[in-house]
Amino acid sequence: MLPNGITFADRFNGISGSAIRAIFKVLNRPNMISFAGGNPSNDALPNEVCADLAKDALLADGKRILQYGATEGYPPFLESLVGYLQANYRFPVEKENVLPLSGSTQGIDLLCKTLTNPGDTILVESPTFLGNMQTLRIYQQRLVPVESDEQGVLLDKLEETVKREHPKMLYIIPTFQNPTGRTLAAERREPIARLAEKYGFLVIEDDPYRDLRYSGTALPPIKEYDQSEHVLYMGSFSKIISPGLRVGYMVGNAEIIAKCAIGKQGSDLHTSNVSQAIVDQYLRRNLLAPHISEILPAYRDKLNAMLFELEAFPNGTTFTHPEGGLFIFVTIPEGFNAAEVFKEAVEHGVAFVPGTSFYPEGGHENTLRLNFSNSTLEQIHTGMAMLRELFATKLKT
Amino acid sequence: MLPNGITFADRFNGISGSAIRAIFKVLNRPNMISFAGGNPSNDALPNEVCADLAKDALLADGKRILQYGATEGYPPFLESLVGYLQANYRFPVEKENVLPLSGSTQGIDLLCKTLTNPGDTILVESPTFLGNMQTLRIYQQRLVPVESDEQGVLLDKLEETVKREHPKMLYIIPTFQNPTGRTLAAERREPIARLAEKYGFLVIEDDPYRDLRYSGTALPPIKEYDQSEHVLYMGSFSKIISPGLRVGYMVGNAEIIAKCAIGKQGSDLHTSNVSQAIVDQYLRRNLLAPHISEILPAYRDKLNAMLFELEAFPNGTTFTHPEGGLFIFVTIPEGFNAAEVFKEAVEHGVAFVPGTSFYPEGGHENTLRLNFSNSTLEQIHTGMAMLRELFATKLKT
Repeated sequence: MLPNGITFADRFNGISGSAIRAIFKVLNRPNMISFAGGNPSNDALPNEVCADLAKDALLADGKRILQYGATEGYPPFLESLVGYLQANYRFPVEKENVLPLSGSTQGIDLLCKTLTNPGDTILVESPTFLGNMQTLRIYQQRLVPVESDEQGVLLDKLEETVKREHPKMLYIIPTFQNPTGRTLAAERREPIARLAEKYGFLVIEDDPYRDLRYSGTALPPIKEYDQSEHVLYMGSFSKIISPGLRVGYMVGNAEIIAKCAIGKQGSDLHTSNVSQAIVDQYLRRNLLAPHISEILPAYRDKLNAMLFELEAFPNGTTFTHPEGGLFIFVTIPEGFNAAEVFKEAVEHGVAFVPGTSFYPEGGHENTLRLNFSNSTLEQIHTGMAMLRELFATKLKT
Repeated sequence: MLPNGITFADRFNGISGSAIRAIFKVLNRPNMISFAGGNPSNDALPNEVCADLAKDALLADGKRILQYGATEGYPPFLESLVGYLQANYRFPVEKENVLPLSGSTQGIDLLCKTLTNPGDTILVESPTFLGNMQTLRIYQQRLVPVESDEQGVLLDKLEETVKREHPKMLYIIPTFQNPTGRTLAAERREPIARLAEKYGFLVIEDDPYRDLRYSGTALPPIKEYDQSEHVLYMGSFSKIISPGLRVGYMVGNAEIIAKCAIGKQGSDLHTSNVSQAIVDQYLRRNLLAPHISEILPAYRDKLNAMLFELEAFPNGTTFTHPEGGLFIFVTIPEGFNAAEVFKEAVEHGVAFVPGTSFYPEGGHENTLRLNFSNSTLEQIHTGMAMLRELFATKLKT
């Protein structure tokens, strides 16, 4: 019960917390097979390496790490991050274009804080990542979905929607999208940068999965086509080193970055220096590329195992065929209600996320998101067999 | 320059970034004696201990530390934090009353986000901590100062202001206040809790300095008198272990805490697990009390050295006599402009913070804040001698 005389802010009307975070609590049950969440595999988390890196960094530069730092970043990390970006991307990056973040979701929060007023319009893919939809909603943004196909956002629909809605931003996950695993086609990337420039809206390019590619060829981020600084690029070390460290970053227009730094001052002041120092050491010692190469084969096997199991699902089931990332999106024939079946699945020891949560406009009750990275091959086979049986029963009745 | 067609949010009108953070950049000059900032002494930062704790924790529980965690906290830390609070405070605390924060400023951000609408009124001390004033302003709060004397907020003025202004919250630093170093008198503490209950506003009790007491007797926090859950208690490990780890916490009404957790989901998701694990180890191994005992004598000596130097300042100079914390607040005779003298002082190699930045209503140009914790005794004697000479010159002209 709230204290006498106290009420919550208007911006929280209708905000109930992320469905995924609530599901997390169920997952602590013993023997639960979880295809929910978006966790990296525990096997891919380099804790012994990080133990040494943390100790080395705290012995070598511990006074600076433990002291207050600059909002703009722990200087060695900022330096190695800029070097990493210059080596891996073809967009221009100097220190003033980069802001270290406590996870890339913080970037969405800061962009909303610094750039949007309540009632502004944000275009989003449909479905899209529900966690960041919640962030946008807390800032009282009006979310307008843009139609997509298997190749991502449809350019003519996007331009039509931009003309009609005058959006402040487009929020897009172009590569191995959450929740679909889809990748925006190469030929649709440059035009999005051009539309942003033409109509004067920002593109938030959220790209945390790009290095988890199991087949096919890497595509340039939209940011590489950005000639007018309308694209803000959000990266993260959560999926390739560790989410528990909470280290991501944002790249873009220096004036927007500086304003976001002021917003960050007023929130966490700066990202944990010890987390920044661990990632710095990871980059500085060139551990990242070999680590990614090491973790990819197991992820590829898990994706393939789950796709194989899906082939045997009830007639009429369709699903995406991602070339990377962490997710497969499944559509069961009409009439199936994933949220209802979810409860029963959990009783049988298997969890997933009902797809409806990812649609800004709701509906699509017959869809679900599956994560393969955080289960063993055996769990994938067992859990998917269970779901197949359960779904088949539901479709008969 | 901003990209074409893009403007900043209305909430950033008039927000220019913390004066202290801007001053930080000056401090990197070699040989600068800094009485600005609020940094703990580098000598008080236990980097070798933390190096071992980080390594041990990452070896013992590294998969959980590096994996996504709960917004509600890394479970071992949450457990040791609750135990620490139960052992050290007489207010009731269960897990649902506590939220780990990425520094206690994040608590101000989350309380504004979850509880306030633009245009709400927040009562603040005058002067008060400028960093958190900025956070409140970004949420478009109307800051109304409450008159204080040497014993802190005046109760009759507080009640009068509450009746007139109908505030949503009172933001107060009762112990070794920033910037004054003052402590709210014992007999004014319970009445503040009663006023909050009577008039239905929240008290944000920001208490990061309480363990840095060099003389006198500890006073109960306002929260210990709170019978109606109108007080939100903000604590921090920044001043007693390390600010660079970014670990603080908030204690209060379970429903408000749960709503703040939803707000935190949408920002940094959770505080760095490695930072939480280091503080957990610190608490779990009972290292905190001995560490505080170890660091107090040097802080006491520094405070006394600075107070001694202030005695020789030009006639008419007054200053606070704190029993703890990090700051002394100085008032120079009228006509003195601390912001103007600041530039000259920096040229002479000594920095402080002009007091005007701490007043919500501005003015008070003849005041300044001095920090003693982050300088050596020699720097205090040298730097204060320089300021004394410089100030004397200014007062003559």
